[in-house]
Amino acid sequence: MEERTEINNLGEFGLIDHLTRNIEIRNAGTILGVGDDGAVIDHFGKQTVVSTDMLVEGIHFDLMYTPLKHLGYKSVIVNLSDIYAMNAVPTQITMSIAFSNRFSLEALDEFYEGVYAACERYNVDLIGGDTTSSQKGFVISVTAIGEVAPGKFVKRSTAQKGDLLCVSGNLGAAYLGLTILEREKQIFLENPKVQPDLENQTYIIGRQLKPEARPDIISFLAEKEILPTAMMDVSDGLSSEILHICRQSELGCVLYEDKIPVHDEARQMAMQFGLDPTACALSGGEDYELLFTMKQEDYDKIVLNEEIAVIGYMTGPEEGAHIITRGGNRHEITAQGWNAFK
Amino acid sequence: MEERTEINNLGEFGLIDHLTRNIEIRNAGTILGVGDDGAVIDHFGKQTVVSTDMLVEGIHFDLMYTPLKHLGYKSVIVNLSDIYAMNAVPTQITMSIAFSNRFSLEALDEFYEGVYAACERYNVDLIGGDTTSSQKGFVISVTAIGEVAPGKFVKRSTAQKGDLLCVSGNLGAAYLGLTILEREKQIFLENPKVQPDLENQTYIIGRQLKPEARPDIISFLAEKEILPTAMMDVSDGLSSEILHICRQSELGCVLYEDKIPVHDEARQMAMQFGLDPTACALSGGEDYELLFTMKQEDYDKIVLNEEIAVIGYMTGPEEGAHIITRGGNRHEITAQGWNAFK
Repeated sequence: MEERTEINNLGEFGLIDHLTRNIEIRNAGTILGVGDDGAVIDHFGKQTVVSTDMLVEGIHFDLMYTPLKHLGYKSVIVNLSDIYAMNAVPTQITMSIAFSNRFSLEALDEFYEGVYAACERYNVDLIGGDTTSSQKGFVISVTAIGEVAPGKFVKRSTAQKGDLLCVSGNLGAAYLGLTILEREKQIFLENPKVQPDLENQTYIIGRQLKPEARPDIISFLAEKEILPTAMMDVSDGLSSEILHICRQSELGCVLYEDKIPVHDEARQMAMQFGLDPTACALSGGEDYELLFTMKQEDYDKIVLNEEIAVIGYMTGPEEGAHIITRGGNRHEITAQGWNAFK
Repeated sequence: MEERTEINNLGEFGLIDHLTRNIEIRNAGTILGVGDDGAVIDHFGKQTVVSTDMLVEGIHFDLMYTPLKHLGYKSVIVNLSDIYAMNAVPTQITMSIAFSNRFSLEALDEFYEGVYAACERYNVDLIGGDTTSSQKGFVISVTAIGEVAPGKFVKRSTAQKGDLLCVSGNLGAAYLGLTILEREKQIFLENPKVQPDLENQTYIIGRQLKPEARPDIISFLAEKEILPTAMMDVSDGLSSEILHICRQSELGCVLYEDKIPVHDEARQMAMQFGLDPTACALSGGEDYELLFTMKQEDYDKIVLNEEIAVIGYMTGPEEGAHIITRGGNRHEITAQGWNAFK
């Protein structure tokens, strides 16, 4: 039988001590970490980038098919992704959680295992947080802090007409992973004896449950001395993000359907579900890839990088935002990105 | 009739635009605020202090007697208080909220009115956050960022034997304010026609519903060139906080009951409730005063400041932490501070 330790036996400070007992500090700038009213960071002349995200049980995740370790990992990744999207390098996070008494100490340990795994992989220090109870459900709030050389951060609002529109990796798989998990959940609810059928779908499901951020793209761009003209991460779906860049940069764009990178397994799975792979990429969300614009003259520097696809270009605002389909048709791009209030 | 605008009519980004439309930037270090993947801060050679707190409906606040504007204000204050407790000056906050569909746009506006009022009063910039839905209740997560001259931050763990133990303002009133509000709630639940009786208790109730942080103490100490040897804010009750300083500094202490500052109205109200005013100060919490230790030779510099009371001194660890009562008895101090897991 699994062990179950009740958290109220430890008390708040006992719990914090327990959860943070193995913290390692990896950044020289982390002057003071967990255990005081605040943490202290020295950025040694760099600028600080801050981003925060809240994840709510039943809205952003379903614990029926999300292992807590994966949830801890993903909670960190989604925030680091925002820091990279500013062209910065994440250095610290704070992690606050509220949870009901249905969670045991072992469950929290599992969650924090994922948190620490992400911190280790991305070389980030956990420097603080809050640990409290909730009446119902699990709520996670992460703030990520990063650093960037003064003036080198990249906003969404600074794309220029004629710039190339680029995206890293591939899109739509995380949404298809979610679709599979939701299907298996329904099958399980109808007949708890049926075992989930997740074979041959590890890539897609991994994209949903254990996403990664793209520091490799940030390093590559720095190495090639490319400063993107605008950048953001793809969390709500490609169409929603493109419209953010268009609106905030006061531009239009042309996007080519056949240039949108979709993984083979995602394409096959979309077909199985009777879904359009392009629609999954445009509206699916949670891919945590980087969407950026850059000057045309930088094209030669990226052409050999298989992890970067040029998917279109920026136009004047009067042309609006359009997609050219494989069939050569032109459609307006609409925001069908994931909306927490739908 | 009050107006009620459903939030899902706006969508997430419409809501964020609405709630952040009047943001003013007050700090030169705030290079980029709300509206991108992250915010950017330049600390111009100072060190950054970070603190975060989560407030959960039903655990930390009861909307039956907490006006949303006050809740917004207090959510900011409790975080700024942690930054001051590090001897730093808060400069930015991020504010994330999750709320169920029982909250209207007007309700969120009221909440943010309080948030902005606190930002204005404390000269702090709101630079980001997250706005999402919850299945039930209201959850608030704030991260506060501040700055301090390199090496001038003050920890809890650096008190020295013989140091004076000091506290700002007065203690226990916030707890008594909560006790009154809880009493009136019970009366109302039993008989909704009875109007709450809150007259002559505005000071005490204000301490609970609209606490303030103590930047004046931080400025005063700086002006007098006093660097506290240890410091923290009083959020869980004096006894709990004193034990933190003792444990983290590996010291004991002597605390004098008759030196603990209690407001006259709090003392009277405690009597009415049949409570010991000292117990309210020791265990009540939420006073957001500053508890600090300093060298004895600095005593002359603070003696005329009526907002600072010397309440005891630090001893070697072998002597433990004790309180000397008015009657001259000596009792061990136990942590009866507020515990979210009780």
